[in-house]
Amino acid sequence: MAVTLKDVAARAGVSRSAVSRTFTDGASVSPRMREKVEAAAKELGYRPNRLASSLTTGRTQLIGLVSNNFQNPIFLEVFDLFTRGLQARGLRPLLVNLSADIDPESSVEMLREYSVDGVVVASSTLSPEFAQAFADAGMPVVHAFGRKSDAPRTHVVGIDNVACGAMAARALLAAGYGHVHMLAGPAEATSTQDRLQGFQGVMAAQKDILSSHSFASAYSFDAGRLEMQRLLAAGPPAQGYFCGDDVLSMGALSALADAGHAVPGDVGLLGLNDMAMARWESFALSTIHQPIPEIVEACMDVMEEMLKGPLWDRPSVSPKCHVFECSLTYRKTLPAPA
Amino acid sequence: MAVTLKDVAARAGVSRSAVSRTFTDGASVSPRMREKVEAAAKELGYRPNRLASSLTTGRTQLIGLVSNNFQNPIFLEVFDLFTRGLQARGLRPLLVNLSADIDPESSVEMLREYSVDGVVVASSTLSPEFAQAFADAGMPVVHAFGRKSDAPRTHVVGIDNVACGAMAARALLAAGYGHVHMLAGPAEATSTQDRLQGFQGVMAAQKDILSSHSFASAYSFDAGRLEMQRLLAAGPPAQGYFCGDDVLSMGALSALADAGHAVPGDVGLLGLNDMAMARWESFALSTIHQPIPEIVEACMDVMEEMLKGPLWDRPSVSPKCHVFECSLTYRKTLPAPA
Repeated sequence: MAVTLKDVAARAGVSRSAVSRTFTDGASVSPRMREKVEAAAKELGYRPNRLASSLTTGRTQLIGLVSNNFQNPIFLEVFDLFTRGLQARGLRPLLVNLSADIDPESSVEMLREYSVDGVVVASSTLSPEFAQAFADAGMPVVHAFGRKSDAPRTHVVGIDNVACGAMAARALLAAGYGHVHMLAGPAEATSTQDRLQGFQGVMAAQKDILSSHSFASAYSFDAGRLEMQRLLAAGPPAQGYFCGDDVLSMGALSALADAGHAVPGDVGLLGLNDMAMARWESFALSTIHQPIPEIVEACMDVMEEMLKGPLWDRPSVSPKCHVFECSLTYRKTLPAPA
Repeated sequence: MAVTLKDVAARAGVSRSAVSRTFTDGASVSPRMREKVEAAAKELGYRPNRLASSLTTGRTQLIGLVSNNFQNPIFLEVFDLFTRGLQARGLRPLLVNLSADIDPESSVEMLREYSVDGVVVASSTLSPEFAQAFADAGMPVVHAFGRKSDAPRTHVVGIDNVACGAMAARALLAAGYGHVHMLAGPAEATSTQDRLQGFQGVMAAQKDILSSHSFASAYSFDAGRLEMQRLLAAGPPAQGYFCGDDVLSMGALSALADAGHAVPGDVGLLGLNDMAMARWESFALSTIHQPIPEIVEACMDVMEEMLKGPLWDRPSVSPKCHVFECSLTYRKTLPAPA
C-alpha cells in the first residue's frame, strides 16, 4: 500500500542507495541525482520511513519525555511547550509516565527498546538517579527543573532553588510579618530541600522573627490543602506563608478560606512557578516567576547540540548547569511592598 | 556498544532467525530453543530493538496520541490515563500536538513517518476529518471524546453530547430558574453543537422560561471569563447558567465573583466533564460527570482489538460508537433539587 524506496528508485531510474542517500541528512548525493529522486518521490507521494532509515543512520528522531507528576497542572504547559518545540525541530516526543513506581533500570529499558536519540527528564521531584541512569546507558540526557550543582553529572536546565527560597523569605520579611511559615513540598525532593535551605538561611539571621516549616506529601492541590488544614488545627495561623509551589498554594488558599482567614488581609501567601493558572482571577497568586518557556527552549538547544554529528563523532558537550533567574510577581495573595 | 541479536545468536549457538523468532510475539519457536536463547539474552543483557524488529513484524508498538487543547487542564488527566494504560499494555505513546494550525494531511505524514501501529485522537473540538484522514491512510484509529453517530466512519468512544445538553437543561429547570443561559464552547466544535441542540430541545417545550445562549471562543478559562464579562456588561445576569465545560465554568465563576454575584445565591451554574479540578474546594463545581477513566480504557480495548493478528489478517472491526452514560454531580455552584 505505502510507496517504498524501491518504487522511487524504479521511477527515477536510479539505484536504491541513491534514494536512501537523498533522504539521509548529511549523506553525499549530487544535485542532479537529488533533483531526479525528489521529483520521483513527489510524484509517487513517497515519505521516507524514519524508523527504517534509523537502522542505517542510528537516529530515530525520537526523544523520550519523562515525567512523574501528572497531578500538577504546570506539566500541561511543560508538555505543550516541549511537544511543539520538538515538532518544530523535526523531533518527536515519546511520553514516558513514571508516576507509578518504576525504578531507573526499568525506565532505561523502556527507552532503550525504542532507541530514542535522547531523553528529557522533566521533573523537580524525580531523583537525579533517573537522569544518571539514562546517561549511563549512553543516552544524551537533559534534566529540566533539576538540581543546580557546580559539577552536574548530566545537563541540568532550571533555576537556583536555594536562591528562590531566600527570595521568598525576603519577600515575607519585606511585608513586615513577624511570624512566617514555609509550607514545603515533599521532603525527599531536591527542589524542596534547596528551597527550604534558602528560606532558612535568610530567617536564621532574623532574631525577632518566628519562623517554622512543614512538608506536604506531594506537589498537589490536595496535599497543600491537607497540610494547611493540619497547621490551622494545631494553632493560630502564621502571618505569612511561602508554599513550595503554586499548586500547593492553591490547596492552602482553599483551606484558609474555609477557616475564614482573609488573604491577604489576615494572612499573606507566596507561591513558586507562576504557572498559567496562577494568574487565573480565582487565585490571583503572588508567586516567584520561573521562566518556563525559556527553560524548555534551552533544554532543546542543549539536546540539539548533543545530537550534532554522527554517533561516533559527536561534539563532547560536558554536562553543565544552565540556570535561569527568577523574579517576584505580585498579584493579590501577597501585597507588593509599599 | 549495545548487545545485538547477532551476539545472542553466537552465545546461544543458534541462528539469528531463531533469536528473532524468540522475541517476536506469535512467531514459532520450540521450547528448548526459546530457553537457550533467553538464557543467552539474559546473560548478555540483550534487549530486543523494537524498531529494528518492526521491519519484520510490521509493528512498532507506537501509538500516536493526538490532541489539540493544552489549555484545558482536563487533558493532563487524559494524558496520564493514556500513557499509563498504554505502557501497561506494552505500547508507547507518541504525543502529537495539533494546537498550532496543522492540517489533517501534515498530521498524517507526521505519524506515517513513524509507522505508528495506531492513532488515538483525544479531542472534542478537532474536526472528524482528522480521525478520518488517519483511517484513510490505513491506520487503526479511535476518536476519544468524538461525536456520537449511528454510522461513524472511525471508532468513536465518548458521550452523547445531545443527551448531556438535555440533562443540563432539565437540571436548571429543576432548580426553578425562569431565566437560563447556555454559555457554550466554540461554535465550530461538534461537542458544542450537540450540547446546544440538547439544551435547546428541552427549552423549546418550556413556554414560560426565558432561554438564551452564546459561544465562547475556546474551551479555556480566559474564554469563559471573557464571555461572562460580555454577558454581564450587556444586561442583568440569568438565574442559571450551563457552561460548555468545566474550564469555561471556572472562568465564568471568576467573572461572576468580580461583578459581585453570589453563586449559588444569586446565580446557579453547571459545568460538564467533572475533571479533577472541579472538586477542588476553590471551585466546588456542580457538573455533569463524564466517566473519563472508563472512556480511556475503552479506547485502548478497541485499539488492542484492531491490532490483533498479523497486518494482512486483522479481524475486521467495523467502526462503532462506544457511548458512556453521564450523570449529575451536585456540589456548590448549583444546589441539588430538594
